[in-house]
Amino acid sequence: MDIYKKALEEHKRLKGKISTSLRANPDTKDALSIFYSPGVAEVSRTIAEDHSKLREYTWTNNLVAVISDGSSVLGLGNIGPEAAMPVMEGKAMLFKHFGGIDAVPIVLDVHTPDEVVTVIKAISKSFGGINLEDFSAPNCFEIEERLKEELDIPIMHDDQHGTAIVVLAGLINAMKVVDKRLQDCRIVLIGAGAAGTAIAKLLTLYQHPEIIAIDSKGVITSDRGDLTPEKEYLASLNFLAPGRSYNLQDALTKADVVIGVSKAGMLTQDDIRLMSDNAVVFGLANPEPEIMPDLAKEAGAKVVATGRSDFPNQVNNVLAFPGIFRGALDNGVKRITDDHKLAAAIAIAGLIEHPSADEVIPSPLDPRVCAVVASAIR
Amino acid sequence: MDIYKKALEEHKRLKGKISTSLRANPDTKDALSIFYSPGVAEVSRTIAEDHSKLREYTWTNNLVAVISDGSSVLGLGNIGPEAAMPVMEGKAMLFKHFGGIDAVPIVLDVHTPDEVVTVIKAISKSFGGINLEDFSAPNCFEIEERLKEELDIPIMHDDQHGTAIVVLAGLINAMKVVDKRLQDCRIVLIGAGAAGTAIAKLLTLYQHPEIIAIDSKGVITSDRGDLTPEKEYLASLNFLAPGRSYNLQDALTKADVVIGVSKAGMLTQDDIRLMSDNAVVFGLANPEPEIMPDLAKEAGAKVVATGRSDFPNQVNNVLAFPGIFRGALDNGVKRITDDHKLAAAIAIAGLIEHPSADEVIPSPLDPRVCAVVASAIR
Repeated sequence: MDIYKKALEEHKRLKGKISTSLRANPDTKDALSIFYSPGVAEVSRTIAEDHSKLREYTWTNNLVAVISDGSSVLGLGNIGPEAAMPVMEGKAMLFKHFGGIDAVPIVLDVHTPDEVVTVIKAISKSFGGINLEDFSAPNCFEIEERLKEELDIPIMHDDQHGTAIVVLAGLINAMKVVDKRLQDCRIVLIGAGAAGTAIAKLLTLYQHPEIIAIDSKGVITSDRGDLTPEKEYLASLNFLAPGRSYNLQDALTKADVVIGVSKAGMLTQDDIRLMSDNAVVFGLANPEPEIMPDLAKEAGAKVVATGRSDFPNQVNNVLAFPGIFRGALDNGVKRITDDHKLAAAIAIAGLIEHPSADEVIPSPLDPRVCAVVASAIR
Repeated sequence: MDIYKKALEEHKRLKGKISTSLRANPDTKDALSIFYSPGVAEVSRTIAEDHSKLREYTWTNNLVAVISDGSSVLGLGNIGPEAAMPVMEGKAMLFKHFGGIDAVPIVLDVHTPDEVVTVIKAISKSFGGINLEDFSAPNCFEIEERLKEELDIPIMHDDQHGTAIVVLAGLINAMKVVDKRLQDCRIVLIGAGAAGTAIAKLLTLYQHPEIIAIDSKGVITSDRGDLTPEKEYLASLNFLAPGRSYNLQDALTKADVVIGVSKAGMLTQDDIRLMSDNAVVFGLANPEPEIMPDLAKEAGAKVVATGRSDFPNQVNNVLAFPGIFRGALDNGVKRITDDHKLAAAIAIAGLIEHPSADEVIPSPLDPRVCAVVASAIR
């Protein structure tokens, strides 16, 4: 059956992918007195005296909010809070299944950074951590930065950092397969939104390769007059001579790696043939990649990754976010740092002892992943 | 063992009275494709086209937010969002246990009506209903009214209406025991906050008895210069002659019913002796009532109710809110009306076939309550 039809049917049948359940059982008068009035008053008094006790006595010790304003959902764009809910609920399902973390989906009906920050701050005491999801660039950068400054709980915009961590993990192993060093590589990055920007930042932190970033208007160079602060940063990463303009083919010529976080069909076989030997092609657009794996390989690519589960090397954020928050919650980490992200990527890569062209990234169903990532977040 | 010590120990042991659980099982690649990417995109597309489908495909069809700003928690007062969390989590537990309703506790770090309304509106698409809890008067009145006007999901401030519904249910049966009619009664109401105001409104809607309301400054009469709109309303309900001031004893003289929603020790045996024969005494302060039941009875009270589980006739909101929201969610009710509240009270009262002095209110553990109340909310 068609996957979309099946998804509709299953969602309608279940009427919800998550629910709440009881850890305490209030089925006697005594239990009611202990877990609700009057006993709970003593718990409230204790927390009122020392707010740090909130984690000891309530579910917030294991609780993450999955928050979105629905402005950049999957490949669907700005579909709003209602339509974002099934995705956020799905993410909460993944948090529980892969990380053992209670997660609550919250969709926001406000969109400016000021409004979003105000609302999230107002509800933040309800949670032990916040996973930001599907906020559009460039708002997502300001929203995440301000929340990280103003709140003392772990906060991560997963579209940025979850993706970047898994891409870096895959590239670490891909370099072993093609026998190159990342710092020697020319990397072409197609797509300069939330994910693209975070990938460039994390690769740079790791080994500072040359990165040529491309957005919908072409190669991002510093002499373009339309750059946001993030795109100015991306422009600073390429070694292109100023004074002329470049196209995709210029960028790809002799490139070692291309990473697409854009849309289907952005790369042709001729494009791949411009690249250096043993090219690495990560075509991560969903559901259709920038180029299909068989076509990329036929044109000379050595290692190919996509966002799909039906080809080898799936870049799936579920490899990162459950472990990141598991580690942060368990270890009292209040801020997810660049060092945490690097350590998580290295931990994920390390799960594959002998990388090969068809296995540079672990399966999202690999049961070892969450614990290994969590142990990197200290 | 002391109930407070036991409550602390049990909360610490469980580290949470609720958790999330999975209704969908994403443990295979196929299941991931159906419940997350790419299949969930079709669910999002469907909801984007028709927002009413949100209820068909997501957990919001059975989901209530329990929201508080921590400004008036139990008998503890304004203890803030952190210290309010164990109470709200307890309420979410009760929603699940008694109503089968998924409920998420949300504590707010904002307090003015404008801020609270803005934040709740911004997150409201995440939920199928909203239970407001422990907001202080008079802010609670404005907050609830504005949210009911501006949102199209069921919203109820439980401290007001849940309490009022159960009190009315108890009085309906108490009238049978003492063989009086409520519309002929003089009722003294001690406490004019959220609960007191809502009780007065609901009793008036039911049968318009005389009500003499008393706040911390004394009997509320229209010639007092310090009245909020709600207290002006309360002043309008008494039949007291203007031009003089009244004290508690004046009010109680020949009164048929006294309802305390104030604090321990507000009533003495001498006070009860001022009342008419077959007096009805609802002393609902928690954990210590306005007068202990044995003292009230010794002084002549015929029917006594408290908020406690260790005496007969416990006024416990859990008799009302699970069924109210169960009915609203199941029947697509978008606004909880006065008629719903009256119907709920009558339904609860009707569960006791032969009321007696020791049984005018059903046990909170009576398994019939939720369904009977839910069937009244259409």
